[in-house]
Amino acid sequence: MTSAPEPPSAPDPRVVKALRDVVGADHVMVDPDLTASYASDWTGRFVGMPSAVIRPGTAVEVAEVIGLCRAASIALVPQGGNTGLVGGGVPLAGEAVLSLRRLSGITDVDGRAGQLTAGAGASVADVQAAAVVAGWAYGVDLGSRDSATVGGTVATNAGGLQVLRYGATRAQLTGLEAVLGTGAVVSHLGGLLKDNTGYDLGGLLCGSEGTLGVVTAARLRLVPPSPERVVALLAFSSTSDAVESAFLLRRALPDLQSLELFLRAGLDLVCRVSGAPPPFADPHPAFLLAEVAGLTDPMPAMAAALDSVGSVADVAIATDSTRRAQLWRYREGHTEAINTLGAPHKLDVALPAGELAAFVDRVPGVVADADARATTWLFGHAADGNVHVNITGVAPDDLTVDGRVLSYAAELGGSISAEHGIGTAKRPWLHLNRSDAEIAAFRSIKGALDPAGILNPNVLLPPP
Amino acid sequence: MTSAPEPPSAPDPRVVKALRDVVGADHVMVDPDLTASYASDWTGRFVGMPSAVIRPGTAVEVAEVIGLCRAASIALVPQGGNTGLVGGGVPLAGEAVLSLRRLSGITDVDGRAGQLTAGAGASVADVQAAAVVAGWAYGVDLGSRDSATVGGTVATNAGGLQVLRYGATRAQLTGLEAVLGTGAVVSHLGGLLKDNTGYDLGGLLCGSEGTLGVVTAARLRLVPPSPERVVALLAFSSTSDAVESAFLLRRALPDLQSLELFLRAGLDLVCRVSGAPPPFADPHPAFLLAEVAGLTDPMPAMAAALDSVGSVADVAIATDSTRRAQLWRYREGHTEAINTLGAPHKLDVALPAGELAAFVDRVPGVVADADARATTWLFGHAADGNVHVNITGVAPDDLTVDGRVLSYAAELGGSISAEHGIGTAKRPWLHLNRSDAEIAAFRSIKGALDPAGILNPNVLLPPP
Repeated sequence: MTSAPEPPSAPDPRVVKALRDVVGADHVMVDPDLTASYASDWTGRFVGMPSAVIRPGTAVEVAEVIGLCRAASIALVPQGGNTGLVGGGVPLAGEAVLSLRRLSGITDVDGRAGQLTAGAGASVADVQAAAVVAGWAYGVDLGSRDSATVGGTVATNAGGLQVLRYGATRAQLTGLEAVLGTGAVVSHLGGLLKDNTGYDLGGLLCGSEGTLGVVTAARLRLVPPSPERVVALLAFSSTSDAVESAFLLRRALPDLQSLELFLRAGLDLVCRVSGAPPPFADPHPAFLLAEVAGLTDPMPAMAAALDSVGSVADVAIATDSTRRAQLWRYREGHTEAINTLGAPHKLDVALPAGELAAFVDRVPGVVADADARATTWLFGHAADGNVHVNITGVAPDDLTVDGRVLSYAAELGGSISAEHGIGTAKRPWLHLNRSDAEIAAFRSIKGALDPAGILNPNVLLPPP
Repeated sequence: MTSAPEPPSAPDPRVVKALRDVVGADHVMVDPDLTASYASDWTGRFVGMPSAVIRPGTAVEVAEVIGLCRAASIALVPQGGNTGLVGGGVPLAGEAVLSLRRLSGITDVDGRAGQLTAGAGASVADVQAAAVVAGWAYGVDLGSRDSATVGGTVATNAGGLQVLRYGATRAQLTGLEAVLGTGAVVSHLGGLLKDNTGYDLGGLLCGSEGTLGVVTAARLRLVPPSPERVVALLAFSSTSDAVESAFLLRRALPDLQSLELFLRAGLDLVCRVSGAPPPFADPHPAFLLAEVAGLTDPMPAMAAALDSVGSVADVAIATDSTRRAQLWRYREGHTEAINTLGAPHKLDVALPAGELAAFVDRVPGVVADADARATTWLFGHAADGNVHVNITGVAPDDLTVDGRVLSYAAELGGSISAEHGIGTAKRPWLHLNRSDAEIAAFRSIKGALDPAGILNPNVLLPPP
């Protein structure tokens, strides 16, 4: 997967000329020096080599590009901010990259309804900023907010830190514009909150990882602002205490915005790498970070909820923004701290409520059994049952540990992809979660909307 | 549409025998005396005549029935509680009815995660009750709660009174089991809150009105209970004041559960029919009913929000359940009160935020221009931009007024179906909201999942 790819052959010069006639000469690149930055995602694990990079500036241009590529049998990998973690947006088999970053406009901001339209190339941070200007907030937030694009987050149904309260990206969609594999532009950006007029094409394209259509714009609902915030960092004497408390807090706090889990080893590493002081004098095995947010002071609700959780070993509470950010850094610092140990294998699973604690306690043993050199780092979104399993000390190409962890999650009734998607990385294991009948249904939908099979053909669906 | 249908010919006796071998002799009915109650929905506007009624008891039986009917080219209309309003669940062209009511079990109630699995035939009220027993609530509520089924509400993505806070039915799904038109059972009931493993087949089937697959069970998320409630009935001196206030309230009250609009004529009719006293001494042209609900007393938040709305002409506030129910009856009594004037034409549209007040003010004139005998009744879910347009005094078969109203909504950028679906009633007008490219995409998806075209073939998609 990380082996140096063969340089692909460049497309027929007549096709390159036709593409340049559509998008402009500067926006079709075939020189490897120019295309290199489109070849790998930011994990560094997935390195491809594009036969060309095509950068259309409008949905109509996207449609024309797809029409030309379809006629010339050129496979396309749609690409946004390149922050994916499963090799779904890089040209691992010499495909052409279809970069959507030029479609970056944010338009039709409706402060009354709380909606805006974002081009596929707008970043999540751009949407967040535009929402604030309009007096609202955007319900999606994730660590890669400055680079991740609307198109990419829609195509992967990105989750993040606030899924608990606002849902993943699909839940923010009130309209979508895309170009299907047939070349047809389907545009439904009216932004109606209730709109039962036919199939939910937007919801279907969301999470389809660029295999059915290319997202060009999204109409996004905004959420009311929640300026008053309280963050509590809770220490527990066991994982199961933390997990049980997570479920109690989720039910007791309708305004819970985030509820994150991490463990002692990860916290120690974050403190060591960042120089931050430990949050508590004593060590504890497991932690929850809870944020409650609203228009009015959430402290009374938080205090009442904490009273109802019997098993908290220690607690730190922050109301002002500086101290809140300090507590958040213990959680958000995990990715960076783990990266200092070398590029980890990053797995992302979801567990049923009743199996979450068992998985967290036992998966390090599953990893160690598969590879004695491996170290397991666990953190995630406790209330969603979502655990990020990072594994260091394993060769990049050795997928033995990955398979063991994903199989263990599936044995417990869990998902092999909570929020990262299948991409190329998890295709071999899709059958752990999806039956032959489901995969056959996926294939028939793929055949219906991308009959020539030119959109991200090496992603999501297993090879036939 | 209401003309007495031709009695369809009964299926081949060999097919009837094969169906009886699958579901039991009592559960395949061909005698019109026995099938009559499956022939019409509760509007009384849509009266069909089934060639047979088939009542499977399990998903496997559903699959076998679909297999037999596919082989025999027998078209099927899936049917739940028969509370639909657009003729989508009755055999208007002599199809066989596939009744899912026997699949009524509620199982795997998980009080920790807040989820349960409901068979297609369970009523919404059954789900609500099971949720309460488990310490949670169900996010969907609608007037037809006692009869409407999970299968029907999933197939139509039913909305109702709490969409504002919890979303429509699609937003409650954490898993779905269905039988596709191919006869394949696709079952994904694990209930994981985050599960990006392939296409969102459940979300696609939700709202597809039985044209792609037959829903047999759903895994439903529950929501935290909100025992503390305040209801405010607000009077306004104009529709635009009410609509503007609706948007202010929506942004100011994250815990807003419902925000309903109605008008003076409807209120007067409700009071006349029910004998309830008018809520205010003075008459007012427009009203909002706002309910805020939470774990803690929502009165301070409600009071602060009302202070921020400058244009309220009068207000009545209720905190105890008896008085809250009294205020709700002014809104919920509309359907029954209007029905006393004869079966109305029931249209259900959604408008963009900026066009809602104009639509409400002008649509009675649009109706009167089309038919001077018609009376227009308007009420709906203000915060969603969703208006129910009821029209009395028009012949049941005369669709002139319907077409004018739907065209007017579409001209303003609105939807011809907010929450009722397309059914058979609105097929002629789907093109008002959906482009040829979108309808072509729908047809290709239909062809992929129901290649023989036997599932609800006369619903949703316009005749080719």
